[in-house]
Amino acid sequence: MSSNSIGKIFSFSTWGESHGKAIGCIIDGVPSNIELSEKDIQPYLDLRKPGQSKYTTQRKEDDKVEILSGVFDGKTTGHPISLIIYNNDQRSKDYSDIKDKFRPGHADFTYWKKYGIRDYRGGGRSSARETAMRVAAGAVARKVIWKKINNKVKITGALIQIGNSKINYDNWNESHIHENDFFCPDEKIIPIWQDLITQARKDGSSLGAIIEVRASGVPAGLGEPIYDKLDSDIAKALMTINAVKGVEIGNGFGSVNEDGKTNVDEMNIKDGKPAFLSNNNGGILGGISSGQDIICRFVVKPTSSISTERKTIDINLQETTISTKGRHDPCVGIRAVPVGEAMIATTIADHILRFL
Amino acid sequence: MSSNSIGKIFSFSTWGESHGKAIGCIIDGVPSNIELSEKDIQPYLDLRKPGQSKYTTQRKEDDKVEILSGVFDGKTTGHPISLIIYNNDQRSKDYSDIKDKFRPGHADFTYWKKYGIRDYRGGGRSSARETAMRVAAGAVARKVIWKKINNKVKITGALIQIGNSKINYDNWNESHIHENDFFCPDEKIIPIWQDLITQARKDGSSLGAIIEVRASGVPAGLGEPIYDKLDSDIAKALMTINAVKGVEIGNGFGSVNEDGKTNVDEMNIKDGKPAFLSNNNGGILGGISSGQDIICRFVVKPTSSISTERKTIDINLQETTISTKGRHDPCVGIRAVPVGEAMIATTIADHILRFL
Amino acid sequence: MSSNSIGKIFSFSTWGESHGKAIGCIIDGVPSNIELSEKDIQPYLDLRKPGQSKYTTQRKEDDKVEILSGVFDGKTTGHPISLIIYNNDQRSKDYSDIKDKFRPGHADFTYWKKYGIRDYRGGGRSSARETAMRVAAGAVARKVIWKKINNKVKITGALIQIGNSKINYDNWNESHIHENDFFCPDEKIIPIWQDLITQARKDGSSLGAIIEVRASGVPAGLGEPIYDKLDSDIAKALMTINAVKGVEIGNGFGSVNEDGKTNVDEMNIKDGKPAFLSNNNGGILGGISSGQDIICRFVVKPTSSISTERKTIDINLQETTISTKGRHDPCVGIRAVPVGEAMIATTIADHILRFL
Amino acid sequence: MSSNSIGKIFSFSTWGESHGKAIGCIIDGVPSNIELSEKDIQPYLDLRKPGQSKYTTQRKEDDKVEILSGVFDGKTTGHPISLIIYNNDQRSKDYSDIKDKFRPGHADFTYWKKYGIRDYRGGGRSSARETAMRVAAGAVARKVIWKKINNKVKITGALIQIGNSKINYDNWNESHIHENDFFCPDEKIIPIWQDLITQARKDGSSLGAIIEVRASGVPAGLGEPIYDKLDSDIAKALMTINAVKGVEIGNGFGSVNEDGKTNVDEMNIKDGKPAFLSNNNGGILGGISSGQDIICRFVVKPTSSISTERKTIDINLQETTISTKGRHDPCVGIRAVPVGEAMIATTIADHILRFL
Repeated sequence: MSSNSIGKIFSFSTWGESHGKAIGCIIDGVPSNIELSEKDIQPYLDLRKPGQSKYTTQRKEDDKVEILSGVFDGKTTGHPISLIIYNNDQRSKDYSDIKDKFRPGHADFTYWKKYGIRDYRGGGRSSARETAMRVAAGAVARKVIWKKINNKVKITGALIQIGNSKINYDNWNESHIHENDFFCPDEKIIPIWQDLITQARKDGSSLGAIIEVRASGVPAGLGEPIYDKLDSDIAKALMTINAVKGVEIGNGFGSVNEDGKTNVDEMNIKDGKPAFLSNNNGGILGGISSGQDIICRFVVKPTSSISTERKTIDINLQETTISTKGRHDPCVGIRAVPVGEAMIATTIADHILRFL
Repeated sequence: MSSNSIGKIFSFSTWGESHGKAIGCIIDGVPSNIELSEKDIQPYLDLRKPGQSKYTTQRKEDDKVEILSGVFDGKTTGHPISLIIYNNDQRSKDYSDIKDKFRPGHADFTYWKKYGIRDYRGGGRSSARETAMRVAAGAVARKVIWKKINNKVKITGALIQIGNSKINYDNWNESHIHENDFFCPDEKIIPIWQDLITQARKDGSSLGAIIEVRASGVPAGLGEPIYDKLDSDIAKALMTINAVKGVEIGNGFGSVNEDGKTNVDEMNIKDGKPAFLSNNNGGILGGISSGQDIICRFVVKPTSSISTERKTIDINLQETTISTKGRHDPCVGIRAVPVGEAMIATTIADHILRFL
Repeated sequence: MSSNSIGKIFSFSTWGESHGKAIGCIIDGVPSNIELSEKDIQPYLDLRKPGQSKYTTQRKEDDKVEILSGVFDGKTTGHPISLIIYNNDQRSKDYSDIKDKFRPGHADFTYWKKYGIRDYRGGGRSSARETAMRVAAGAVARKVIWKKINNKVKITGALIQIGNSKINYDNWNESHIHENDFFCPDEKIIPIWQDLITQARKDGSSLGAIIEVRASGVPAGLGEPIYDKLDSDIAKALMTINAVKGVEIGNGFGSVNEDGKTNVDEMNIKDGKPAFLSNNNGGILGGISSGQDIICRFVVKPTSSISTERKTIDINLQETTISTKGRHDPCVGIRAVPVGEAMIATTIADHILRFL
Repeated sequence: MSSNSIGKIFSFSTWGESHGKAIGCIIDGVPSNIELSEKDIQPYLDLRKPGQSKYTTQRKEDDKVEILSGVFDGKTTGHPISLIIYNNDQRSKDYSDIKDKFRPGHADFTYWKKYGIRDYRGGGRSSARETAMRVAAGAVARKVIWKKINNKVKITGALIQIGNSKINYDNWNESHIHENDFFCPDEKIIPIWQDLITQARKDGSSLGAIIEVRASGVPAGLGEPIYDKLDSDIAKALMTINAVKGVEIGNGFGSVNEDGKTNVDEMNIKDGKPAFLSNNNGGILGGISSGQDIICRFVVKPTSSISTERKTIDINLQETTISTKGRHDPCVGIRAVPVGEAMIATTIADHILRFL
């Protein structure tokens, strides 16, 4: 079954393996006459690409994107936009020792059960390398959103927790987000996070993280009840990101502790327009955007590739052990920030094109 | 855009409003030659139907389901199964005072912004009444699952938290779940929950809840990377349920606190078969079922319909207040338990038919 | 797999068997605020319903349609419109003698091979009775088209050939179409067709027919290259009608005899607007409407239910014979005219909603 | 809206323009563990590629296909297969004189109306160059069919008519098809066709053609009533091919002249198995394959690019004339033969994967 596409009108399909020749995607449903070049996409890829700091994997990839179709004279034509990134730093031999073993916590075992074959080089299709193309699609989605609404729509992701260390929301300063190695809005917590990651590496372990994405300037009316609600499409989109184990909107799981009286987001009129006295519902009511900021969070589990030896089995059903050497993110949640942003951007673009 | 259907192979589409003539659904993609009658569906509807205890709404509905097509000589034919439930207790006049007002926390405002018209009688299409048809579809999904796998597959939902009162997992006794008014596996907590709800009603307020659904006996191999992963489809399916604000798989948001070393679910061989030493990943790795129990949770926010007066606006953009009189669930999460079960059943049935 | 729906935005799903309790459909994707009642639908059903003249089947059905959802205060709400027609004249016993035999030329054998079970009463799901719901959906589609474009858009079907007797296009008079039993625009040919059908009945045989549908007032720009071209969606839609074996656009198969020089539909400017000197391409170029009249034709094979005894086999793989007694259309192509119109209407409505 | 994909399980998406950097496709839904390399695909591309004989366009393209993903150790992995062909002979300057003019009979005008921008170089996205990727997808589809059924399934296209010159079916010799420049099974007609094409070129005109495709060895049971019937999916698939104006199954439009008594395809038992006494229905009954040969035909209109001057308009709505110089197929129907085969192969592969 075709399962490598997402979105109904703004729709993208990705292809490629971690250590294959290239990765790529087709973006279909982009309206015509939107200015687009590689320069609109590359900066977002640069935020996600590996080897940026000592807190992420040291794999070296340029992640240089090329547009192969769908753009003519600098503008979109309404036809599919094909993007490609050639893989450089493949280092296939790194993976030879795990060829027949299932890395616990990874998709190795389940891919083998499902397909009876797997590209063991760096996880093949199950690698987070695929998310580069989501970031590229997200960049195109932003162009669509800005064209259809206006360029005040802003989609911003931030890391709000690593391990049990959570930011203080009172310290939130959006301008900090791109000034540190963690996409962190609270500069005071940076040293703690640096220590946490350094320690996890030393321990041969890894850390989980929580990311928050906010979208402001989104008009009311996006989302299609009952089964294409904006929040259910967001939940699906975020849950497809590697290692994500939970998604929440607005107060999310915290709403179980709320009083019904305060949780309802009372309304009034402000400057002649409908307004809300709070935003516990994260900008979505009945599956449709309310015009408030859309707020969502997702959790990324601790990276499963760790250097500590773990028990596992091999394809011959023999017990064995495994430890992952080499280049891995001790907290894969960090590089998930631009990916989360991208998935919100593509989901919103899709619903804008359904609505307008 | 068509948005009232869910599922790619086992697919169902619902229709109908809270106070219209009837509600119904079409289930398409059911294999032929499965025994099916109303008796397979009605018991699940009876679990969800209103007026069952003093802790849920007092609206009276028989919720008597009728099969209109797709079954011949007691067996499915492979053609669409049309189900209908006629609405009895509509009491339309109850809603006359909210005709022009937007109930805060509800879809009233967003439906009006999106559609420019809304059926204000009991929420119309946005009412949780729609979930009756999900429960019906879930009953048919179980028949499909049992036919395709075996009837040891078990999908069980339970309420694990109301407000800030959480069950003790050590007291989990599955046989209790259907012996109290809360689908609660921990009988010791029942009196506390009874008090909480009674108090919330007295206060003119409402309570949130968390539901856990477990599916055991599910084979490895279900789920389609990258964008139809089993967990992303579960996330979407659960998030479409009214008032749900968060979804998690396995350790979920708790995995941010886990150590990478223990979180990976080490593997060994047990009775000659692959086994796992833990189930932190909730039975899903890389978006594909591993053969372990699938474990997921979702949170239902406090019911937005409360008797305490709240600030809101009306369709003429005038400020006003509103309070909801009459029959409402003080904790809508209770009746969401069979709905959550149903959505897991339909999602699993869909993926079984894709895989087998 | 879900296969009882058609259309991507204006989408409808049908259900029901020839001799089940009822037939129905859900129409999803209809914009809100369009006036709609049963009165908008019934007249089209009356054109298709059986027993209208001695040239069609004598089965008696009121085909009284009821709207069950999606309309509030006389207007569409943007939510699914559920339509139902209860079956009256089922006469199940008529079919007892064909219970185990495959009627040649029918779907009996193939349904049995595919599903291993079939509702033999009147063909069950494979019966042309299902097309009543297409006609209903077509009526709603027209309302959508008129609202989105204007009510000068006109979709008109006509029977242009029965057996080897073809109308003379010079005699085409649209006002005649609804004044005879054949939807025929050429009144001179009526007596010949009456004789042909009377003779076929006497011979225990049946006749094929060709239907032409024209849509005028359709704007340029409808259709989505490459795989949702307007003409490919029309071809699919028409080919789903029972007994249809061919579809063509504009000159169709006749274009093989055309000279490239004249076939191209030269252009000029007329009244300041782009115009064409001919319409050999049937109003569609590159899969997109050109603004000219859309012209298509489809052929309906001779009815397979005939009273002459034919060789066949039964479900026990024994050779036998069969002849169809009773109420059948000697030329099922006649009643296919409103069905063809409906499929063009729903296809155009779908593409209008994609485009506007 | 995403419209560059076709197929529900075996699904492919094409991208690229006639004179862009490259063309390509993603094939999704291919089962794992099927042997596949470029060598399985290239021979089919070589049949379609331009410049093969003096009867087709002289554009020079190697059409060298490269697999970029989805294959590991020579076998499919179950993940998307990305194929690419770089464009060599682009000669963009050839098209400079038609930059602002609409070529009559082409998609130039309708693309401009729909998108407000068009890649005028060789027709851009509307060029038949896109069909190379269909042929590639068709080659992969055959591998799927052979793996799932057996390698006796045979899908063979043939040109049966050019202009008004039709083959004599009595002369049909399948082995001739690949021994002439026309995919013609009747060697006696070759000289006539050579003359016809030479004359059309001299006249600055072009010719239409009819192609027949037969698929033998296809099992009974493929096709999904009501709206994904095998014949309706075939009709759609063939009608998406450039310049196709009609599609028919079995007797097709000829069935209007048939007697109901002979048209029904009587059945008997042969060698203990169900058999048919004729195949007027082209191997499809009720939208489901019967096990007989599937037979379909489609018509390709005379090439719209001709050297004779024709009246047209430009983007400034001025009247003008145009004639196409250079390299064009005088009968584009010839090279449509492998494309038609490919579309039948992909449609059958899709339905096999739905059924098995």
